[in-house]
Amino acid sequence: MGRNLKFSIEKVFEGARLGKIELAHGIVETPAFLPVATKATVKTLSPKELDEIGTQIVITNTYHLYLKPGTKLIKEAGGVHKFMAWNKPVMSDSGGFQAFSLGLGAELGEGKFKYDVGERPKKPVMERKAYVNQDKVVFQSIYDGSYHELTPEKSIEIQEALGTDIIVALDECPPPSADYNYTKESMERTHKWAIRSLKAHTTDQAIYGVVQGGIFEDLRKESARFISKLDFDGIAIGGAFGKDEMYKTLDWIKEELPDKKPRHLLGIGTITDIFNSVARGIDTFDCVGPTRIARVGYAYIRKESGGNIKNKFRIRLTKKEFKHDFQPLDKNCDCYVCKTFSRAYLHHLFKSNEILGLRLLSYHNIYFFNKLMREIRESIKNETFDKLYDYWMN
Amino acid sequence: MGRNLKFSIEKVFEGARLGKIELAHGIVETPAFLPVATKATVKTLSPKELDEIGTQIVITNTYHLYLKPGTKLIKEAGGVHKFMAWNKPVMSDSGGFQAFSLGLGAELGEGKFKYDVGERPKKPVMERKAYVNQDKVVFQSIYDGSYHELTPEKSIEIQEALGTDIIVALDECPPPSADYNYTKESMERTHKWAIRSLKAHTTDQAIYGVVQGGIFEDLRKESARFISKLDFDGIAIGGAFGKDEMYKTLDWIKEELPDKKPRHLLGIGTITDIFNSVARGIDTFDCVGPTRIARVGYAYIRKESGGNIKNKFRIRLTKKEFKHDFQPLDKNCDCYVCKTFSRAYLHHLFKSNEILGLRLLSYHNIYFFNKLMREIRESIKNETFDKLYDYWMN
Repeated sequence: MGRNLKFSIEKVFEGARLGKIELAHGIVETPAFLPVATKATVKTLSPKELDEIGTQIVITNTYHLYLKPGTKLIKEAGGVHKFMAWNKPVMSDSGGFQAFSLGLGAELGEGKFKYDVGERPKKPVMERKAYVNQDKVVFQSIYDGSYHELTPEKSIEIQEALGTDIIVALDECPPPSADYNYTKESMERTHKWAIRSLKAHTTDQAIYGVVQGGIFEDLRKESARFISKLDFDGIAIGGAFGKDEMYKTLDWIKEELPDKKPRHLLGIGTITDIFNSVARGIDTFDCVGPTRIARVGYAYIRKESGGNIKNKFRIRLTKKEFKHDFQPLDKNCDCYVCKTFSRAYLHHLFKSNEILGLRLLSYHNIYFFNKLMREIRESIKNETFDKLYDYWMN
Repeated sequence: MGRNLKFSIEKVFEGARLGKIELAHGIVETPAFLPVATKATVKTLSPKELDEIGTQIVITNTYHLYLKPGTKLIKEAGGVHKFMAWNKPVMSDSGGFQAFSLGLGAELGEGKFKYDVGERPKKPVMERKAYVNQDKVVFQSIYDGSYHELTPEKSIEIQEALGTDIIVALDECPPPSADYNYTKESMERTHKWAIRSLKAHTTDQAIYGVVQGGIFEDLRKESARFISKLDFDGIAIGGAFGKDEMYKTLDWIKEELPDKKPRHLLGIGTITDIFNSVARGIDTFDCVGPTRIARVGYAYIRKESGGNIKNKFRIRLTKKEFKHDFQPLDKNCDCYVCKTFSRAYLHHLFKSNEILGLRLLSYHNIYFFNKLMREIRESIKNETFDKLYDYWMN
């Protein structure tokens, strides 16, 4: 079946690509940032707001929707677009990353993995919340501890029920501590799963394959070559741990990836990472960062307002210094929040545990990212991306 | 100094009054409902949303703003309108009700009072969180247990700093269990405080006096007469406990109140209470109900959608029966929420602890009240209020 994705590159400037992804629910101009709608909602924001702040596409988590409210319900609703009342493009992930990482995510902290390779232990042990073999990953639900299996076929089945514009083949994201042998074994599993995923896929939804290979140059290149030659509509890059490894990885695989397929960097979203990844030919990004940190009081601020690499382009509104600060949140931002409210008011909302505070910073942060991506696109068009890069990164 | 309130009655139909209150920040068409902006925010909603759902005026709590962020900060901000970015009218209460009731509110439950009459105990006793004598009420902060004094003069001073359109004289709301003697003593204190409040008031903000008198006919009438003859711009009615007592109270005092002053019923806000109070000549109401119950999953539904006195015109979205219900929240409501989302999606948001759920029901519930008040106003104008009353109340 023909797939509903058309990608065109309008311009390449010093490695940065200006493009357009045409999908069933609309066009995504790239480079683009995807806010994360974990449970079919970008936390605290309405679809109307996402639209008014220039969001082109969101990504939703297969793991979460599969467990709650369940695939069947979303199918009944007519798909995730109808369910969440968002008529623009939606991407879904494969569910693999959460199945592996959420096993003990809460206890170990983000980005720390703990799972077994091999057969399922006879007795469920609470410390083992995910294990993987050649066929599948088995994981315990974060909601009730119940066991679930995820196979490549099942992930595709769920994502087809969600009806998202872009689906992703199941992959294994190896633990950061994995050695060469484990990483190779894991990559080969991901490759086999990629083939199974394509075979299982029956609709015209676009499908991306995932490049893995950890921190090893030969594996990354091998994975990029392998995934690139399969019948995927786009390439996702997974398992990028730490800035330096990530940039190296992107440099390694750049030449191995086909120009004509869009490239998505999974789970990446600091300002610095975005600039450096765009410079390495990445087209789309997703990250919970902008909304997650909003909910603990962080707001992104623009370079001309004092944002820089050191302060990570953000201020924390809960700090005392903002109590009497009657300036706009960011005087160089033209979003509703910055045009309407003072830092002192936002500080008050956070100090008073008012939900409006979480909303307003989430709104501003996503607006900030959308605007930055727009500026990046314009700079590629105008061949000034190098200047924009220098301005923000120095 | 002249005060910035002009009240006109356009029509009276079977006791129900159609009117208009002109204030410094705009006009309020009455009967009207005031959403409560406890801490300078109507919980979960933005001022833009309040405006788009037809909110004419909000009420904010002097007690809360005095403690956090503090009067000084709001004065610095240029008043509460600027602080919360709401350019339409704002009313403030006197702070008395919270000072008395929040002493042990959390422990005893809403509407239950516990405080002492007399001198301040030498040693702070945790069970005594508010006490009152002829001069003042002394209370412990819900935030840090610190002691604060509220006098009529101080309440006026705070409310003048807030810069609200309508301020309220400090009163004592006696405990529901108070006997005749205590209620009389308390009422006389309220009356003395009313005189002191007027004397202390220096700006052109409109000021309302509060009628008390508990459940005793002669006291209520005496209080209504006393407060009415003072130089207040409007009359607030306080301490209405329970439906039957409240309706009786309104009947008792109706004849004692001057026609030409607006009448505000403090803290009242069920559909039934609103219909019955409008029928008894009340012009404005405030209540945390619509937003508070929204946050635990209740949505108001219209009569034609199955709302009635028995179900209190509401459904609880957290219930299992809504899991697969893909109908709009209320098919006879034309707000953004009802035009956009299904009950099943709202159910999912609540089951997943998503903030968007709290927002959407708060939005709908305030829209519901604003629309109902608009319909009530039209029905008075068209002399069909009796029919509207019968339709909703039977």
